[in-house]
Amino acid sequence: MEKTCTVMLPLTMNSSEKPQTVCIFGTGDFGRSLGFKMFQCGYSVVFGSRNSRMSSLLPSGAEVFSYSEAAQKSDIIFIAIHREHYEFLRELTEDLNGKILVDVSNNPKINQYPESNAEYLAQLVPGAYVVKAFNTISAWALQSGALDASRQVFVCGNDSKAKQRVMDIVRALGLTPLDQGSLKAATEIENYPLQLFPMWRFPFYLSAALCLFFFIYCVIRDVIYPYVIENKDSTFRMAVSIPNSVFPITALTLLALVYLPGVIAAILQLYQGTKYRRFPDWLDHWMLCRKQLGLVALGFAFLHAIYTLVIPIRYYVRWRMRNTTLTKVITKKDDPFFTSTAWHSDSYLSVGILGFFLFVLLGITSLPSVSNMMNWREFRFIQSKLGYLTLILCTAHALLYGGKRFLSPSILRWYLPSAYVLALIIPCTVLVIKFILIMPCINNTLKRIRRGWERDSKSSKSALNGKSDI
Amino acid sequence: MEKTCTVMLPLTMNSSEKPQTVCIFGTGDFGRSLGFKMFQCGYSVVFGSRNSRMSSLLPSGAEVFSYSEAAQKSDIIFIAIHREHYEFLRELTEDLNGKILVDVSNNPKINQYPESNAEYLAQLVPGAYVVKAFNTISAWALQSGALDASRQVFVCGNDSKAKQRVMDIVRALGLTPLDQGSLKAATEIENYPLQLFPMWRFPFYLSAALCLFFFIYCVIRDVIYPYVIENKDSTFRMAVSIPNSVFPITALTLLALVYLPGVIAAILQLYQGTKYRRFPDWLDHWMLCRKQLGLVALGFAFLHAIYTLVIPIRYYVRWRMRNTTLTKVITKKDDPFFTSTAWHSDSYLSVGILGFFLFVLLGITSLPSVSNMMNWREFRFIQSKLGYLTLILCTAHALLYGGKRFLSPSILRWYLPSAYVLALIIPCTVLVIKFILIMPCINNTLKRIRRGWERDSKSSKSALNGKSDI
Amino acid sequence: MEKTCTVMLPLTMNSSEKPQTVCIFGTGDFGRSLGFKMFQCGYSVVFGSRNSRMSSLLPSGAEVFSYSEAAQKSDIIFIAIHREHYEFLRELTEDLNGKILVDVSNNPKINQYPESNAEYLAQLVPGAYVVKAFNTISAWALQSGALDASRQVFVCGNDSKAKQRVMDIVRALGLTPLDQGSLKAATEIENYPLQLFPMWRFPFYLSAALCLFFFIYCVIRDVIYPYVIENKDSTFRMAVSIPNSVFPITALTLLALVYLPGVIAAILQLYQGTKYRRFPDWLDHWMLCRKQLGLVALGFAFLHAIYTLVIPIRYYVRWRMRNTTLTKVITKKDDPFFTSTAWHSDSYLSVGILGFFLFVLLGITSLPSVSNMMNWREFRFIQSKLGYLTLILCTAHALLYGGKRFLSPSILRWYLPSAYVLALIIPCTVLVIKFILIMPCINNTLKRIRRGWERDSKSSKSALNGKSDI
Repeated sequence: MEKTCTVMLPLTMNSSEKPQTVCIFGTGDFGRSLGFKMFQCGYSVVFGSRNSRMSSLLPSGAEVFSYSEAAQKSDIIFIAIHREHYEFLRELTEDLNGKILVDVSNNPKINQYPESNAEYLAQLVPGAYVVKAFNTISAWALQSGALDASRQVFVCGNDSKAKQRVMDIVRALGLTPLDQGSLKAATEIENYPLQLFPMWRFPFYLSAALCLFFFIYCVIRDVIYPYVIENKDSTFRMAVSIPNSVFPITALTLLALVYLPGVIAAILQLYQGTKYRRFPDWLDHWMLCRKQLGLVALGFAFLHAIYTLVIPIRYYVRWRMRNTTLTKVITKKDDPFFTSTAWHSDSYLSVGILGFFLFVLLGITSLPSVSNMMNWREFRFIQSKLGYLTLILCTAHALLYGGKRFLSPSILRWYLPSAYVLALIIPCTVLVIKFILIMPCINNTLKRIRRGWERDSKSSKSALNGKSDI
Repeated sequence: MEKTCTVMLPLTMNSSEKPQTVCIFGTGDFGRSLGFKMFQCGYSVVFGSRNSRMSSLLPSGAEVFSYSEAAQKSDIIFIAIHREHYEFLRELTEDLNGKILVDVSNNPKINQYPESNAEYLAQLVPGAYVVKAFNTISAWALQSGALDASRQVFVCGNDSKAKQRVMDIVRALGLTPLDQGSLKAATEIENYPLQLFPMWRFPFYLSAALCLFFFIYCVIRDVIYPYVIENKDSTFRMAVSIPNSVFPITALTLLALVYLPGVIAAILQLYQGTKYRRFPDWLDHWMLCRKQLGLVALGFAFLHAIYTLVIPIRYYVRWRMRNTTLTKVITKKDDPFFTSTAWHSDSYLSVGILGFFLFVLLGITSLPSVSNMMNWREFRFIQSKLGYLTLILCTAHALLYGGKRFLSPSILRWYLPSAYVLALIIPCTVLVIKFILIMPCINNTLKRIRRGWERDSKSSKSALNGKSDI
Repeated sequence: MEKTCTVMLPLTMNSSEKPQTVCIFGTGDFGRSLGFKMFQCGYSVVFGSRNSRMSSLLPSGAEVFSYSEAAQKSDIIFIAIHREHYEFLRELTEDLNGKILVDVSNNPKINQYPESNAEYLAQLVPGAYVVKAFNTISAWALQSGALDASRQVFVCGNDSKAKQRVMDIVRALGLTPLDQGSLKAATEIENYPLQLFPMWRFPFYLSAALCLFFFIYCVIRDVIYPYVIENKDSTFRMAVSIPNSVFPITALTLLALVYLPGVIAAILQLYQGTKYRRFPDWLDHWMLCRKQLGLVALGFAFLHAIYTLVIPIRYYVRWRMRNTTLTKVITKKDDPFFTSTAWHSDSYLSVGILGFFLFVLLGITSLPSVSNMMNWREFRFIQSKLGYLTLILCTAHALLYGGKRFLSPSILRWYLPSAYVLALIIPCTVLVIKFILIMPCINNTLKRIRRGWERDSKSSKSALNGKSDI
């Protein structure tokens, strides 16, 4: 599985041509790993350090010199040193003049300094060409070879020749460079490895809030209400029964929220009569994190599935089954079989399973390597057609679960309806609006708008132009 | 998760060297997204348009000119315009002379025009070097950065220098260009994004047909038969019981059909005594979609697993359990425990679970990113050894499920055997033939044939040559 | 899904520039597939062969010549011939002088010959530049296009210009070349496709040994003991009950073993007072296969989940439920409901489900394409924080399962405690040590050591230097 063949490699080059020499300042973990990897890929590596004590950890074949000696051996120098210690480079200004300095550093916190490390380096050594690169790659990944070609290395710098040299090295190491423009992009590139799931934050907090709300709601209805009215201790319901109400509700609501922004966007476009107006920021952000919302919803659906399958193992359920049978025996009541009840029970289970199956399919196709294999038409088919089918099946599952008792007043406790009734509001709204939107008359207008047509008469001329562009 | 750092980027290049300028004709969604992305990656972007009204949507820093003005600013021009509007380029023939024109267009339908858009463009502007590229990338993916380095961009064109220029731009955007040859390949490249799962069509229709057939078969045996003979309403079985017969049968049949073509190919090679004869087309096509067949089978197996686990929650099953107990109470019959029944019930469950587990493992290893990590020997081990083990376990699961009552005549209804008996035909056939094929005498002949040996005496000389090639 | 558009492609190049010509020696499967692929990507392909009989299988448009004729047509020659037949190349030494020879061969066994095939080739034809490449790619994958850009091609050779030429061809075929240095690396590269899951061997054997040990342990306690003491036949337990004890125990033990080496490493670092000393080899190897250990553990956890969910379908369980009810009816005993038992049963189920859910999440994030999307901080968060949470939940699940009867002597059989008690030893140990390690006083020392600080006073000066490096 792992490319272990890259771990140990021959150390000599008996080629007639001299290999390219690169210099690395700093013999810390990252410096050593980078040196090791470059050495493997055919480069001759020279380290710059204050002393050469820790040479046992360095790749054999590499040499360690003082900073200024090392700098003279190569025209490209990787600065694998913490920013706090950049000061000493000021003394080497002459040695570094005209050299390419590659800043690979990261800071522990976002926006810790007013300027990026790479820009700071460029100020310290004005005569050098500073390029930012490699900071998104970890020492461990470099050394263990746990990187494949799809790993991108963000590169930026003001001098395009210097940048090109660094990008060639990135490619030689089997990685993909991605030019990010001038050195001003370094701030972004340095912030990137410090982010913690920025796109997942909104779905996470939203689902946590939904879970909490519905948990409290269910506790009131299913634990506090019976305790107050009948003085019955149902606290044990908080372990399985209530989570198994909260999770499906959250899943269904989140799934509907995946499709709600698309519906809102369509209404906005119909209302404004053009697609050439930006959506409000909240809608843009919402649309960008639809995938994450959907995957969180899938997580809750998965939990719901297991919590449901575990039901017959629970002590409470087994006890109730025994108790029902015993009661029938004692009261000598008949236990007739109702086909309609069997239909009802089986159909909501079946619809739920099919919905869950499609949901899992959606989840699998959103794996990066799978969605990469699909063309745009296939991706749209999966995410839109199959997605709506999933929403329809899951909503039908909840509707069938309710069945007849849906809005019967006997189910109200302290005027609170069952939690799943609340869960149905957003999905049903989305489905109804979507149903209206796909009716031919409205759909055709929408299609024309999305192809560039505009309703305003005065702009009809330019619209004709707009229409001609992809 | 998402490379959000690419969304906002610095807009100035304070490099001493002038960045390369590219020109884009058309300010539609794709033109703008492409411009935005190229701008991010350090290019200077110029738009050509009839008017400059919609400039608010264009990346700031980009300039909009008339077509002929814009064309003069760069020697590489992206034509982000619908094919229907190419006509106007005829007037610009002089401006476009000697320029590289990149055709990024797609058509709404497959084979809509006699020639590809790129070839049409080359006819319109004979003095330009036309290159087809980027049509498989969506505007949305370009803008949102939801592309990684493993995304391939198909490129074709008659002039290799022009093609090289375009491929360099593709690489600079962090994508992988794939040279597809001359401009005649444009037809294929333009059809590619219009395909809808071409490899999945056969497995999909086949499984749909199998499902339908077995569903009707089961309805006749389990619903119509009891209704006719005993006047019993068992329609509710159509919701869970019958799907849970149909899905495993379809899964097992499809899984066997994954291994059948390999067995047929081996027999053909043994019969013909050479591997240097093409297989019939149907066999070739069948072999190419084995992976898809297997994944569809896995889907059905997954459904079978959930439908089975849901059994004890069903109203019908709970009622039957209560009923059995009540009957025992009333008739005061003893309820002895049979170890053999326990063995039988537990062993078919256990074998089924292990088979399903291996099946899921096979599915995971067929994910593109996972199979990419494996070498050829590992891939073969998984898909062949583990695959046959899965088939053996799943067939054993069905055989054990049947148990003693397998072919007892009492199980026939209207001369129809149980559905699972039909399900066993293909898997058992495949396993028996495979068992014969791996017997040393036959296996050795097969191995020799696959290494290039031929049975015909007259070709033995050339076979010797053939043997020497990989 | 599949890039079928690459299957059939135009055969003519009407470009004014002549396409580059490559020569392939050998018309076997690999030679043909390689020629086909290169032809698709715009190269002109010439085959060298002893005769041209099998031309029907060759890509149309390609020409077949004798070896020496073919060699004259191109300066780059792919040797798609088995090593045993290299001898004849000796006769062509003059034709091959100064040419680039690409060795694509593989051997059937690891270390079959004293030197690698590529080095042998270099000895045979001393005047040629030998480059090793493409041996990790299969003929089938080349022809079917089932390769994406993340597939790496290892390349090595002594002449960097020749290597560069080959790497350009690799890129043109849409693959990623990875320079592995001089021709001495060829041995490693040739061994790579012959490996069979080297990183999975230790986890596999370890888990097999654990399974076997616990299976025998459980058989003694649950089958032999009741047979000897009560003369009761419980052999049927070996099908489901005992596996369902063995699998969770193995899963929990393996999961704990994923986190044990990290804890040992921390203790070693604390004890040695430095991070600049290599860990013992066994610890290094153990740390490198943590991911594989974790995935094997997930497999067992998955099996445990299904074996558990299947419980209520088992004949034995159904019989026992009926039996319990019947006994209650006959003895007319009351069947009171214990809230505490309900709490206990529900809470261990709930904790187990949540633990399994997190475990599955960990497994998904270890998919190559998913972990590639994460930055280092996100990856650490998932694998460390979420990993420990999973371990805590799974350990709690086992502890709660035991409940009160944990160490009651009545549960001992032949002085053997229940198997799950043994399962808890390693997880509890790991969690207790980890808990001690994260206490502020110890954690701070550890953090300083990991930032380069050393306890030894004499090396404090160099430590200061070390601290400055990344």
